[in-house]
Amino acid sequence: MKIGIAILSLCFYSSIAWSQAKSIQERLGYPKDAKLVIIHADDLGVSHSENAASITAMEKGSVSSASIMVPCPWFPEIAAYAQSNPKADLGLHLTLTSEWKYYKWGPVTAKEKVPGLVNKNGFLYSAVDSVYMTASAAEAEEEMRNQVIRAKQFGIDPTHLDAHMGTALYRLDYLRSYLKIGHEFKIPVFIPRQLEIPLKVKFDTIVSGNDVIVDYILSASPQDFKDGFPNFYTNGLKNLKPGLTYLIIHTAYDDEEMRAVTIDHPDWGAAWRQEDFNYFSSAECKKVLKENNIYVITWKEIRDKITRK
Amino acid sequence: MKIGIAILSLCFYSSIAWSQAKSIQERLGYPKDAKLVIIHADDLGVSHSENAASITAMEKGSVSSASIMVPCPWFPEIAAYAQSNPKADLGLHLTLTSEWKYYKWGPVTAKEKVPGLVNKNGFLYSAVDSVYMTASAAEAEEEMRNQVIRAKQFGIDPTHLDAHMGTALYRLDYLRSYLKIGHEFKIPVFIPRQLEIPLKVKFDTIVSGNDVIVDYILSASPQDFKDGFPNFYTNGLKNLKPGLTYLIIHTAYDDEEMRAVTIDHPDWGAAWRQEDFNYFSSAECKKVLKENNIYVITWKEIRDKITRK
Repeated sequence: MKIGIAILSLCFYSSIAWSQAKSIQERLGYPKDAKLVIIHADDLGVSHSENAASITAMEKGSVSSASIMVPCPWFPEIAAYAQSNPKADLGLHLTLTSEWKYYKWGPVTAKEKVPGLVNKNGFLYSAVDSVYMTASAAEAEEEMRNQVIRAKQFGIDPTHLDAHMGTALYRLDYLRSYLKIGHEFKIPVFIPRQLEIPLKVKFDTIVSGNDVIVDYILSASPQDFKDGFPNFYTNGLKNLKPGLTYLIIHTAYDDEEMRAVTIDHPDWGAAWRQEDFNYFSSAECKKVLKENNIYVITWKEIRDKITRK
Repeated sequence: MKIGIAILSLCFYSSIAWSQAKSIQERLGYPKDAKLVIIHADDLGVSHSENAASITAMEKGSVSSASIMVPCPWFPEIAAYAQSNPKADLGLHLTLTSEWKYYKWGPVTAKEKVPGLVNKNGFLYSAVDSVYMTASAAEAEEEMRNQVIRAKQFGIDPTHLDAHMGTALYRLDYLRSYLKIGHEFKIPVFIPRQLEIPLKVKFDTIVSGNDVIVDYILSASPQDFKDGFPNFYTNGLKNLKPGLTYLIIHTAYDDEEMRAVTIDHPDWGAAWRQEDFNYFSSAECKKVLKENNIYVITWKEIRDKITRK
């Protein structure tokens, strides 16, 4: 019995060592020095505008993957799309906050089971700091697990998990719960290498051999929005490094609904999301990707070739 | 003690007899044969489009009153408007259904407390019949009461209560609960005289002297929509009878959000709501009201002059 465990353990650790030794490009079957990018739209489900624009940007533009907010009002619309379009690369944007001024949502879990996640009005908190002040990792874990269960009940087969506003990422106990849920459901989770320093942890000590750590993040700041997105994204794509880059965008239309959702918050607002949509639906973007030999990949590739190998 | 009760009972019944003997016009201080109308927009809170159009139709058009759906996603937006515009005649559209295809909401009460109101996805049922099949009047009452409590927590001082899709009206045990909640909070409730026949009850036997029974309802049907709203509403207004008419409309814009909310349901859909908005924002409507000596009144008048007298 003990010998059996020892052999199993050995296999397990050598599998990690082997998989981590091989680059992500090799693990997915790309050239060793390939520049891989997931062009990822966040926040699906938040509004009809976000759903409609993101579907178009995936079907006709260069967006390769997107993730869905299960507690949001327009979740049933995007769930119906996912069910009738099983090839779409749709994961879950696990959501522990409700950040807009007049348009709010609560958890999917019964409120009395996750009191630390819920403000006095019954909604999720607006800010990540408020969540950390009142919610235990166990409450966050229960809510995240219930979001996965609910998505599956609605016919979604998630290609990945990521974290709305990074709430599940920036505190180690939350991150462990998030990773645990990924392992339970055999769904890859987004873990960016750059968090090792602030979290003071080597990810190789907490991940399994079937996890993937994202090498780089490319994401616009409010200053980049002021300076103009086309230049920012074109320069970013031209300067991608070999490895896996996660390019995080938010695609929606600058319409009445989206302006009302994001009222009093120009950063990540309706005009911002329209600009994201415009660039990643453009011929210019496709040209830059082609000219720079960039491989646009999906989470489904990672899920099916690595996580569920 | 017995004598005291007898005197109290006598006062109570004579108060009913007195108030019912006087016409609604007289009770409100209008000429005895006046044609009174409440031009009422339903469904505020359901979407940003509905909120924005209804606010404009109240501020600039002829809409005199509206009611809010507390469980809906855009409730916080209209609650903020109500709080900063205390003169607006805003009541609560007590909501026990969630009728649209891809855009849903649940109860405000914890789901395990009102299991009969909730479908397998955790939302309110789409149809009134489904509610009646599974929810007791006690569950409906708890949810309706919690909607009033929640509205007050959000700073709304409701001018009246009415019933989304009529769910609280078409079954006598539900109607009794609805009336009871009105009495508890001293808020007038919408009770249409025409329901006496299907419900097989004389309303005078269940209401108090401070309740008001609406004499007539004017509300467009799908055939009226096909035939054109301007003619329907103009003719309706020209033919109002003396007494109180409740003119029920739904004002929203025919925009992307509203088309997505009402998808696959042209009746009471986005174009319908835009047409309602157009007519009740028009100079034509104001002219018809004036030329026909119609008094456009509010629920606040009823609340303050009768219910809370």
